[in-house]
Amino acid sequence: MKEFKNPLSANFRIGFLGAGQLARMSGLQAFRYGIQVGVFSDRPENEPVQFMTPYSKTGSFDSIVDLVEFAGTCDVLTLENEFINSDILKEVEAESGTPIFPSPESFALIENKLIEKQTFEKAGIPVSPYALVENEADLSEFGDEHGWPYILKSSKGGYDGYGNETIANIEEAKTAFDKLGGNKGHDIIAESFVDFSHELAVQVARNETGHMVYPCCETVQEDHICVAVRSPAPVDKAIREKARELALKATEAIDGKGIFAFEFFLKPDGSLLLNESAPRPHNSGHYTIEGCVTSQFENHVRAVMGLPLGSSELRSPAIAMINLLGTERRDARVESSPELLKASDGHLHVYGKLDSKPGRKMAHFTLLGEDMEETYARAQRLTQGIRI
Amino acid sequence: MKEFKNPLSANFRIGFLGAGQLARMSGLQAFRYGIQVGVFSDRPENEPVQFMTPYSKTGSFDSIVDLVEFAGTCDVLTLENEFINSDILKEVEAESGTPIFPSPESFALIENKLIEKQTFEKAGIPVSPYALVENEADLSEFGDEHGWPYILKSSKGGYDGYGNETIANIEEAKTAFDKLGGNKGHDIIAESFVDFSHELAVQVARNETGHMVYPCCETVQEDHICVAVRSPAPVDKAIREKARELALKATEAIDGKGIFAFEFFLKPDGSLLLNESAPRPHNSGHYTIEGCVTSQFENHVRAVMGLPLGSSELRSPAIAMINLLGTERRDARVESSPELLKASDGHLHVYGKLDSKPGRKMAHFTLLGEDMEETYARAQRLTQGIRI
Repeated sequence: MKEFKNPLSANFRIGFLGAGQLARMSGLQAFRYGIQVGVFSDRPENEPVQFMTPYSKTGSFDSIVDLVEFAGTCDVLTLENEFINSDILKEVEAESGTPIFPSPESFALIENKLIEKQTFEKAGIPVSPYALVENEADLSEFGDEHGWPYILKSSKGGYDGYGNETIANIEEAKTAFDKLGGNKGHDIIAESFVDFSHELAVQVARNETGHMVYPCCETVQEDHICVAVRSPAPVDKAIREKARELALKATEAIDGKGIFAFEFFLKPDGSLLLNESAPRPHNSGHYTIEGCVTSQFENHVRAVMGLPLGSSELRSPAIAMINLLGTERRDARVESSPELLKASDGHLHVYGKLDSKPGRKMAHFTLLGEDMEETYARAQRLTQGIRI
Repeated sequence: MKEFKNPLSANFRIGFLGAGQLARMSGLQAFRYGIQVGVFSDRPENEPVQFMTPYSKTGSFDSIVDLVEFAGTCDVLTLENEFINSDILKEVEAESGTPIFPSPESFALIENKLIEKQTFEKAGIPVSPYALVENEADLSEFGDEHGWPYILKSSKGGYDGYGNETIANIEEAKTAFDKLGGNKGHDIIAESFVDFSHELAVQVARNETGHMVYPCCETVQEDHICVAVRSPAPVDKAIREKARELALKATEAIDGKGIFAFEFFLKPDGSLLLNESAPRPHNSGHYTIEGCVTSQFENHVRAVMGLPLGSSELRSPAIAMINLLGTERRDARVESSPELLKASDGHLHVYGKLDSKPGRKMAHFTLLGEDMEETYARAQRLTQGIRI
């Protein structure tokens, strides 16, 4: 592999595989360290990161040739999504000599939902009951054993509720199985429905210099989309600490180098189940930009550069983050924002997407405060009238 | 003039006239609002902002044609230095229809040191004694009236001590006058030497929605280069408030829209003299990135976009910023930085310049703390071993 030169050099370039808002926010932190940003996307133009670098390449995430060519222009590569294959990453790393973090080996342990569950289960981390389902008999058996309704998920490529189906009976199960591509050979897993009081999340930054575990926050979901985050999560401190402990254990289980996010269900009995993981910055951690001493994006960049990590401590006792989802199909623009911008210690971030559509993640707003109920209510009020 | 569309649109582009670290740090804030960044530079490559946008144009700051062409690709233009002429800006604005903020009219009132002094004097703001000097008789007369030594400055284009000469007698005065271009028709002004205990600075953001005045900080200078900043300035609160009041008055005197910085001498008797002003982000305000709720760079972008301004309040009781100047002539890289990066609530910013040379502003380090003496001493200790 290439000699990893001093990364704090002005001609060091970090390459992002993916060009969305996560890479954009990490890229801004790369710039802050004086380094350059490369971006690889399968879309030719108008992706958020393409507006902020002259070093952009379009290609296919399935093409070793495209990816190796891009890798050759960068000193290190990192991920912004999970839509790529670990086998491809391994070949790209080997052929180009450009290191990739998180490593293809770490990624291989979580790249699809089945392997991910197995990895964390093996590490002693509680996950909800699941099974690979391959036919009608499996679909029936899972429901009979774990109860109806349950959830079917495509093992690879789902996000924000896409690729998930809640099914109440065997007929729905069969329809959903086909819809998710089970009849085309895609791996489908069944997961039992978890009764939970809260959904929690923890980010972990880790590399050879050490690790930083972020505070445990709560994600507020509507229709499987995260609409808000509250940090610290309004649950017992012992539960928050337990979630942080499990998140670190999970990161260590995959020998993760980079930034990782872990989502948990908190059950009414106070126990935690790991729901999902992500080997990249995560929507649940956007609040860390102003809310923590060092944001998930900055520690993402530090981690892959091999630099010491910065503190993940909270800057204020209560932080609320509201996702601003597209309200209509049109050119993207933020309307009715003056009150938002005037809010003391309120922080707007817009992702630079040219097109808006209902439900698309376009921007977010973070508010720092002293009291969680008050801060969250204020953040909701301030963002209510926004059209985007 | 062009209709100024909703600036919070993804295809809105802010154009920077200048491509150095100030435009880079403002540009990062533009990205945070989802907009695009254009850059105009008279150097073809490797300038800090050129690494972070696909929209770069090279040309001459004296060429209306070049500038109008660039203006046509942007929705608003802003300055990152004072090396351009207000007359040229006026023509560019008129021909392109692209608004420029600060406006050419504001800029005309401070674009050279003679006019600047007159403008602020007229507004009732105390400035140190000065005079336009055009020949040997003027040089003698100024020294005899205000005392030797005094300072000769080129009226336009000086920075970081370049363009300034301290002279002790008429022979030195004649040499310096020629060196500064007085014999080539450049305006030269004489300024009396001010006995001061501290150099203070205040940034002001202002537009049609209101203004935000930053805390009064102290700039620590060595050889006319700012080496450190401490905020709040370790002087009486009444003095700090007076400086803030004068800074706002000065901004209003030029009807400034944008971000401005004002440097003051604090005399031993507690009175203040306005020394210099800048119609752009300023080195004295780098600490505001982490040190204030809204940084000078973010408010720069907000101000020129016509958005409401964000709070300029301090985030902690004591903030120290250390400039990291080039230590040798070589490719830029930061060495011996691990302790710096590990420092709790310490923040490194590197500007992305490819080449280092002794004294060149390459990076800075900001440390937030509770006590100024302790924080400043710690920041100095942490940055002592840095090679860059």
